[in-house]
Amino acid sequence: MTTAHLYTFTGSEALMARARKVIPSGIYGHQSPSFLTLGSYPSFLTRGEGCRIWDVDGNEYIDFMCSYGPIVLGHRHPKVEEAVRVQQARVDCQNLPSEKWVELAELLVSITPAADWTVFAKNGSDITTWALTVARAHTGREKVIAAANAYHGTHGWCAPNPTGIPAGERALVKNFQFNDLEGLKQVVAENKGEVAAIIISPFRHDFFHDQEMPDPGFPEGVRALCDQEGIVLVLDDVRAGFRLNLGGSWEPYGVRPDLTCYSKAIANGYPLAAGLGREELRPAAESIFFTGTFWAGAVAMAAGMATINTLREEGGIEQMRAMGQRLRDGLEQQACSLGISITQSGPPAIPFLTFGNDATFEKSRVFAGEAARRGVFLHPHHNWFMMAAHTERDIDQALAVTEEAFKIVKAQFGG
Amino acid sequence: MTTAHLYTFTGSEALMARARKVIPSGIYGHQSPSFLTLGSYPSFLTRGEGCRIWDVDGNEYIDFMCSYGPIVLGHRHPKVEEAVRVQQARVDCQNLPSEKWVELAELLVSITPAADWTVFAKNGSDITTWALTVARAHTGREKVIAAANAYHGTHGWCAPNPTGIPAGERALVKNFQFNDLEGLKQVVAENKGEVAAIIISPFRHDFFHDQEMPDPGFPEGVRALCDQEGIVLVLDDVRAGFRLNLGGSWEPYGVRPDLTCYSKAIANGYPLAAGLGREELRPAAESIFFTGTFWAGAVAMAAGMATINTLREEGGIEQMRAMGQRLRDGLEQQACSLGISITQSGPPAIPFLTFGNDATFEKSRVFAGEAARRGVFLHPHHNWFMMAAHTERDIDQALAVTEEAFKIVKAQFGG
Repeated sequence: MTTAHLYTFTGSEALMARARKVIPSGIYGHQSPSFLTLGSYPSFLTRGEGCRIWDVDGNEYIDFMCSYGPIVLGHRHPKVEEAVRVQQARVDCQNLPSEKWVELAELLVSITPAADWTVFAKNGSDITTWALTVARAHTGREKVIAAANAYHGTHGWCAPNPTGIPAGERALVKNFQFNDLEGLKQVVAENKGEVAAIIISPFRHDFFHDQEMPDPGFPEGVRALCDQEGIVLVLDDVRAGFRLNLGGSWEPYGVRPDLTCYSKAIANGYPLAAGLGREELRPAAESIFFTGTFWAGAVAMAAGMATINTLREEGGIEQMRAMGQRLRDGLEQQACSLGISITQSGPPAIPFLTFGNDATFEKSRVFAGEAARRGVFLHPHHNWFMMAAHTERDIDQALAVTEEAFKIVKAQFGG
Repeated sequence: MTTAHLYTFTGSEALMARARKVIPSGIYGHQSPSFLTLGSYPSFLTRGEGCRIWDVDGNEYIDFMCSYGPIVLGHRHPKVEEAVRVQQARVDCQNLPSEKWVELAELLVSITPAADWTVFAKNGSDITTWALTVARAHTGREKVIAAANAYHGTHGWCAPNPTGIPAGERALVKNFQFNDLEGLKQVVAENKGEVAAIIISPFRHDFFHDQEMPDPGFPEGVRALCDQEGIVLVLDDVRAGFRLNLGGSWEPYGVRPDLTCYSKAIANGYPLAAGLGREELRPAAESIFFTGTFWAGAVAMAAGMATINTLREEGGIEQMRAMGQRLRDGLEQQACSLGISITQSGPPAIPFLTFGNDATFEKSRVFAGEAARRGVFLHPHHNWFMMAAHTERDIDQALAVTEEAFKIVKAQFGG
């Protein structure tokens, strides 16, 4: 990584030309290059180690996206890779689960005060959708309430783009504004006796928007409303889980959901999702259909156990918080010195930065693009992620790059 | 494995007691022990190698379930494991796809005459549901047609158990009987201009039912009907794909679907799914939302390339067909000698056996249970699977066990 030389992407471009022939849009979904700064990012990555990643042109980056969440310890963390190697030598996907099925469930239940049992799947969206099914089975109701613009996955009821999805599938979802408890109460009142679940992320982390921590009393208010109306409270902890608190992201507020949804960081990049619930919901969970061919795969479960145990043993949560704060402080100081108006939002371990007077995210695109071309992988409009592998040296090296990127933003747009 | 000593399962039972505390039903879904013969099967497996698997009590089995499909070459096939090892040393799940994203798409398109492009996901159900979304986007219609009792996955529209699923999500699915072309035409006529897709498996493989190969002219008739009515033809090749024909399971009939759904055997047990489509559907595929955090994971894609290439190079399809036929011939001869009425159905590589006068599958449960206790892992009411690792010696060893199991069925139920 050097700040003297700006990266080029001829290898990525050649691969992208091949990709466009055999894959719709070449790359679709959240990894689409159209969401990044065109011309300033690679399209394909080929290696990862700790907090460093390399693209197909050999350019090196300090990674602040963590594969959009999963990499929580660091790429190819030795303890996780060793657990994977041992498990792969025995068994992964079979006719029946392995002992890891039980051991990981016991571990998750043991660290989660809100939960008495757990189920497993492969996608976060498998689990958020499962939670609604359990809630509907439990309550005999069909409607659900979610915060407007919140991302809960790719299933029909929640996909951000409704193209090709039957209208009726989405009509059962009612919206409120995150942190607006009175508004939420009103939506519940308007659908009295018909709401199976309120599904909510622990804080607001929609893309194209500053993050919002829950207002004082908001989690408690949601919990009380659910209790009063017989509504199942579903915490969608897919994005934030295992980065803020190992017991669940609303545990610091003393608010315990009925069902908790985990995926992303649960196994440091190995594909796994888990749904946790309290005893009262167990009969509903036993009454529904829920299965998948690969869901009991033992390798991802071994990776999950190693990930959670390593986070605990090595103080990973605290390290991410501290390094996220160091990054935030550095960015604040740089912007302040240059007279650039910025907003930093969300918890330090899941940072995000927006610019003042930048409704179209043009400044963000320049900032993130100039950082990428100099070896720091941020995102222009999606929150970033810290990993436990980030050290003070990495943060300081990244800050040297962001200072240059800020200066370019200032030169291009003014203060 | 010995026929003198009947297996016991104290280790499985102890693990199951722990599982019941922290997991609904202990084991849920297709791996639930309630679907097997209680007391005659293990509940947990701990190792696999070639066509042999071992449970947590150390009992060894010849595996004829292949993890419900995925294991097509053999457990821990050296070429797949080597490709996985090489890829794991570089990268798996990152911020962007790896070069494997392009290489696997190119390989799939190159072997599939019906397809011009492909997309990836993790579950078969991700892809069958994706196919309906693409078809709905393409046609602007909402209804879909599927064969009655066919299994297409775990999403709301197709889960076998409707508990907790909004009624409206399932009301858009209309049914016909597999192989009943006139019945299908009638359903289309009753919903004229409203049907987005017909989704169908290449042959009938519902559980609790003899398998049915398509009648002569049926695939061609479905294709012609779709062409005439502007309906998207979706082949759900999740269960059969990569076992019958590497170009797609309806390729031998010369019938090409608009969209093809693959998962299970695509990567010899590593979690992966793929949707393939023809050029005309590309704009619809580009218009919808479809993504998942782990979907571009390079390790499963490297496993997929090694699996497909090895199947081609080593004649895996032909080996499965030949060994499936050897198993079928042996079972036929045994049943005939003992005067037991059986029906064997489906393609040799995806075999199944039912007993005459056995509506409640009691004979099947005894037969499969007695085989399991002697080291042969079959299933009482779900089709079985062959893998390329089965040798003549394995088949003959399995047949020595099935002969004993047949004799017990005869002693218990008569001829």
